[in-house]
Amino acid sequence: MPSDSTVPAAAPNPLERFVAVIPAGGVGTRLWPLSRAAAPKFLHDLTGSGSTLIRATYDRLKPLAQGRFLVVTGRAHEAAVCRQIPELAAEDLVLESEPKDSGAAIGLAAAILYRRDPETIMGSFAADQVISPDSVFQAAVLEAVHTAASGGGRGKIVTIGIEPTHPSTGFGYIREGSALEVEGAPSARSVAEFVEKPSLEVAEKYLASGEYLWNAGMFVAPVALMLEHLAANQPELHAGLMEIADAWDTPERDEVTARVWPTLPKIAIDYAVAEPAAAAGDVAVVPGAFRWDDVGDFAAIGRLNSAREDEAVTVIGEGARVFADSASGVVVSDTKRVIALIGIEDVVIVDTPDALLVTTKEHAQKVKGAVDALKASGDTDVL
Amino acid sequence: MPSDSTVPAAAPNPLERFVAVIPAGGVGTRLWPLSRAAAPKFLHDLTGSGSTLIRATYDRLKPLAQGRFLVVTGRAHEAAVCRQIPELAAEDLVLESEPKDSGAAIGLAAAILYRRDPETIMGSFAADQVISPDSVFQAAVLEAVHTAASGGGRGKIVTIGIEPTHPSTGFGYIREGSALEVEGAPSARSVAEFVEKPSLEVAEKYLASGEYLWNAGMFVAPVALMLEHLAANQPELHAGLMEIADAWDTPERDEVTARVWPTLPKIAIDYAVAEPAAAAGDVAVVPGAFRWDDVGDFAAIGRLNSAREDEAVTVIGEGARVFADSASGVVVSDTKRVIALIGIEDVVIVDTPDALLVTTKEHAQKVKGAVDALKASGDTDVL
Repeated sequence: MPSDSTVPAAAPNPLERFVAVIPAGGVGTRLWPLSRAAAPKFLHDLTGSGSTLIRATYDRLKPLAQGRFLVVTGRAHEAAVCRQIPELAAEDLVLESEPKDSGAAIGLAAAILYRRDPETIMGSFAADQVISPDSVFQAAVLEAVHTAASGGGRGKIVTIGIEPTHPSTGFGYIREGSALEVEGAPSARSVAEFVEKPSLEVAEKYLASGEYLWNAGMFVAPVALMLEHLAANQPELHAGLMEIADAWDTPERDEVTARVWPTLPKIAIDYAVAEPAAAAGDVAVVPGAFRWDDVGDFAAIGRLNSAREDEAVTVIGEGARVFADSASGVVVSDTKRVIALIGIEDVVIVDTPDALLVTTKEHAQKVKGAVDALKASGDTDVL
Repeated sequence: MPSDSTVPAAAPNPLERFVAVIPAGGVGTRLWPLSRAAAPKFLHDLTGSGSTLIRATYDRLKPLAQGRFLVVTGRAHEAAVCRQIPELAAEDLVLESEPKDSGAAIGLAAAILYRRDPETIMGSFAADQVISPDSVFQAAVLEAVHTAASGGGRGKIVTIGIEPTHPSTGFGYIREGSALEVEGAPSARSVAEFVEKPSLEVAEKYLASGEYLWNAGMFVAPVALMLEHLAANQPELHAGLMEIADAWDTPERDEVTARVWPTLPKIAIDYAVAEPAAAAGDVAVVPGAFRWDDVGDFAAIGRLNSAREDEAVTVIGEGARVFADSASGVVVSDTKRVIALIGIEDVVIVDTPDALLVTTKEHAQKVKGAVDALKASGDTDVL
């Protein structure tokens, strides 16, 4: 972690208005049975670092946000999140009674922050991503904060786009436009367009062109500008969120939330804000040259634990006792059982107290189908 | 099970002198982690029949032996064996304080039975083999009993040789000699020789010749003849066993056994008795046309559960909840966990509360090596 001396202290510094929002939702079905409703992905240490993903996210943002955080998560995860981040005060936590997609979750964070201070610049960073090195990430966020504060009073919605390392068909892309002239953000550019997950052929063209970045869903923006676009594109969602936000720091919070939240439409923040804002010319991008992974499946876990790549079997989990003979792959263990692998290549084994997954790296993406089938068969106790 | 009417009642019937000896030893290391020191192979139902192997062995012999049994097992397994065969009286059980190989185990059974009745014909049948159909096995044992009682007062040591179905390199073979003329045993022949486990090339020749049978370690013999050969070939072992047998049904049993048993040499019954007896012309063979398997590894378990071969994954274990997608192989479950297999072929999974094995049918024979490695690493709690 860089020292705080990387954070410039000159006033007026837009970083003083910065609040880090951490949406911690999503079960991570493709990481079943490790990740599941009761113990979602962000509560696991998937990189062998000793930190859960949410704790690592918090630590990565701390030098920029200092104590200014808002974590949005499900009510069921309150205790686990507080154990992971004991620094959080009660007002730093937004608990959803039921999941409502990222539009409502991030929109509510924007609305609450707006009511607390309309000058706030929020930065939204999912709790379940892996990033390194932290210093490169922090430099990109810092540029994004400066860019978000630029352009007169209005500012920009600034995505952080990841420089692609391979022609992924699993991510959306951002096409960069012209360079912006922002003080403190030399690499900021306009966004020409957001594009959906491409075919492999298209992804290869994107990669070759050098004009495209991965859309990692990270953005920094003045909350006022977020809410302006939300009001324009999703007036019903905006009205409901403002009603909740008005009541949030009052005794009426629970009553109003219980009444309004269940009625809100489910929509991703990309559709509710980012794409229409880009069309309106209000979105910028700062490229991030850091390593980034959304840990989409167990093959990713194998990649992310490359520190042990001298061993053929990557073992995740403190208690695991793995014995391998002519075997390779990934073992994720949530138990203290002895696991013996003999003569099996590229295997993926996930061992938890009540469920066991055995697959291959090649088939790791199919785990979601297994979970759907278990759901259909009524074996929901392990989901 | 055939009715008792298959057992001839004409006197003097040598079957009335028949006692079934069931050596129940051997951990079955290649079936780890299902089979282990605390729960050896014979205490498992490996065929999905609803019976453990030792119970099935008892039931298969019951029409011939009636209540005349002697089970030789380790002291640690007394309670489990009695739960499996509640019919056993205290005098039907021989408990070893430490394992001493088959020479001492079967030799002690012979000596005890000899002291109780020197005219006894013993039949020794390991507790951990799978045989079907029972009726064909019983007919072969019956022929073996008649053969064992033949040849004047001396009798024969009669092995039951299995008609080979493939050129196995995992078993010893018996070369048949000339036909014997034994009343009640039309298929009995002399034994030309016992041969050790052959190479594949040699095994193929054996199979093609039609003169060879698998040595399954099953034999029927007058106890007096057994002891005669034991005395000639292993005088020290013989003397020790006779000393224990003299004290067995007296108050001195524990004292004498504790003193003598630990001093006895470890030797297989094949070397101590069968092979020298064959060289002396005292061994006959009755071919068995039944299906036989010593369940040597998990691939065997897959074969033995072919009743479910319409399904790609054979599941052994009552509590198992297996979900398979593009997968094939064998799952042996000793837990109630959900097991999801995705995109993995010919896999062998053995799931127990404290140890998990993942291998392939092809590598199933290597399990013993894993157990040795675990032993070397000190992970003996799961062995």
